[in-house]
Amino acid sequence: MAEIRRDLVKKYWVAIAANTALKPSYFPIKRRGIETIGNQVFCPFCEGNESSTPAEIMAYREGNSAPNTPGWSIRVVPNKFSVFHLDETLEKKNLGIYSTYSGVGKQEVIVESPEHGLDMHNFSQQKIAQILTIFKSRYNELAQDERIKYIQIYKNRGIFAGASLEHSHSQMMGLPFVPRTNSGVVDYHKKKGECLLCAIVAQEKQSLVRIVYESEHFLLICPYASRFPYETWAIPKQHGEHYGDISEAQIIDLAWICMIFTRMLMEGLDNPAYNLVFNTAPLNMPYQAGYHWYLEIIPRLLVTTGADISTGMFSNPVSPELAADLFREKMAKFI
Amino acid sequence: MAEIRRDLVKKYWVAIAANTALKPSYFPIKRRGIETIGNQVFCPFCEGNESSTPAEIMAYREGNSAPNTPGWSIRVVPNKFSVFHLDETLEKKNLGIYSTYSGVGKQEVIVESPEHGLDMHNFSQQKIAQILTIFKSRYNELAQDERIKYIQIYKNRGIFAGASLEHSHSQMMGLPFVPRTNSGVVDYHKKKGECLLCAIVAQEKQSLVRIVYESEHFLLICPYASRFPYETWAIPKQHGEHYGDISEAQIIDLAWICMIFTRMLMEGLDNPAYNLVFNTAPLNMPYQAGYHWYLEIIPRLLVTTGADISTGMFSNPVSPELAADLFREKMAKFI
Repeated sequence: MAEIRRDLVKKYWVAIAANTALKPSYFPIKRRGIETIGNQVFCPFCEGNESSTPAEIMAYREGNSAPNTPGWSIRVVPNKFSVFHLDETLEKKNLGIYSTYSGVGKQEVIVESPEHGLDMHNFSQQKIAQILTIFKSRYNELAQDERIKYIQIYKNRGIFAGASLEHSHSQMMGLPFVPRTNSGVVDYHKKKGECLLCAIVAQEKQSLVRIVYESEHFLLICPYASRFPYETWAIPKQHGEHYGDISEAQIIDLAWICMIFTRMLMEGLDNPAYNLVFNTAPLNMPYQAGYHWYLEIIPRLLVTTGADISTGMFSNPVSPELAADLFREKMAKFI
Repeated sequence: MAEIRRDLVKKYWVAIAANTALKPSYFPIKRRGIETIGNQVFCPFCEGNESSTPAEIMAYREGNSAPNTPGWSIRVVPNKFSVFHLDETLEKKNLGIYSTYSGVGKQEVIVESPEHGLDMHNFSQQKIAQILTIFKSRYNELAQDERIKYIQIYKNRGIFAGASLEHSHSQMMGLPFVPRTNSGVVDYHKKKGECLLCAIVAQEKQSLVRIVYESEHFLLICPYASRFPYETWAIPKQHGEHYGDISEAQIIDLAWICMIFTRMLMEGLDNPAYNLVFNTAPLNMPYQAGYHWYLEIIPRLLVTTGADISTGMFSNPVSPELAADLFREKMAKFI
């Protein structure tokens, strides 16, 4: 069973798999040597290995193939190692000075291709649009459960982005709490009476120095206080709170951006690991103004250091102005 | 010049080297392949290469060798790539909705050995005690500068712990602000009127399940809400706020713990990357009760994922109770 424990010193939450005895050799960093010896390693996400994942939640299948058999192009399955499960109830336990919650929630994996070794930069615009559409449909389905207060969509690509499997996939977590990481948008709205992301779009369009690309529906910028070298945000120009409300036209446009940006990224930063992170609004709780969904694209060229962990301050050796310069120039080739 | 920029959405600070154009190929992850081809790569920390670092601040030299020449056993130099400099003044600048501070502070590197390829688990207790004594002396020296509000001592060992150089070293940052990461200790003291770390020591000594080792002066535990698999804290049993006040007897005891623990770690977790992080009290500002210095030892078997970054919640697949079991058993061999 998973526990969500509270640290009293640093005031963070940590999801701990309290009862599984994971051997040190299990960890991705340790396993990497093994995985790259030949191509003999078993991949649970490859076509033909459907029985090695939990039963599928949904899949795009062109023919009449049965669920959990080959013949799919995109497949959604529960995360086998999830710390969150919807069959638990949200309970707080105290142990002396410590406290813990049970892990109520859901974690799903979107396997983006039946073929091993392809990733977003290899996909067509139409294929990426299908993936974004699945995100929307799973988002709106999970949002029906009142115990879920926030839905986190993300992608880990490459070992330095935290991926434990190489096969192209994204994930979605339905959480029983709202992460505090984006609380600045609520504070800003309380203070200024306007949306922070809309204000960022307006200011960036005036200064121009951090703009990578502008499409009909999105502004692509390297954010002013980039935590990571070459961090980039895709912000919908039209105010919208929930990713689940993304329009058909926005999906097509965002698919185009994801396609050309990841192609550029592979060349510009020499095949980097990266994360995709969708920020969106809380669910199933009293309304708070200020949220505006957007997508973060985070290349992972550095590993978190002892200084980052201890001070909570990020250190970034590449200014977003220089990063935007580089990306703007390189993007031209892919458009 | 460095800027410390504020992110409005997530409310973090980031130190940005605003004017250097770092090529993607510079980054440690990209360079790793190059560094391990042969042993031809130049190391600025090796004996004989003293001129490739800024002039030394201090060094242990047994003979009469001159500063910045061979003949040292431990050497302290300014960090050449520091974002913090004491010759700046603390200034806030606003740029529309954004804000930034100048990077006033200091960053020093403690090169722990003239020889490449040795690390803490190879050092004698006496040698580690010398390193801990240098930490104390540099801490107390930096603490004299009123602009410095917090001193962060840390070590990155291995590329997965964020080390950009392989040669054994630690670092010390004098910061113009107090990191909020440990603010829980102040809140706890306000609410309960006692020290949180002392309360943790008391509760852990009662429950026993997370204790790795107990020496005369320190309790070694895997903390209740461990963020990282096999995370371990060395807490001084006697209440003390500043690392700069560590006693001679505590240094000798802590050196022993560092020696046996890192030797055990190399075997128990198969030569892992790790961070050492010293938590201590703020400086040069109105007194706040609740701080109690302690050392965190953080093996790095996982890379931060998109979920960690986006939700701010850590995910740990190894419970501290199981980690402590494993370490307790393995420690016996090294004592």
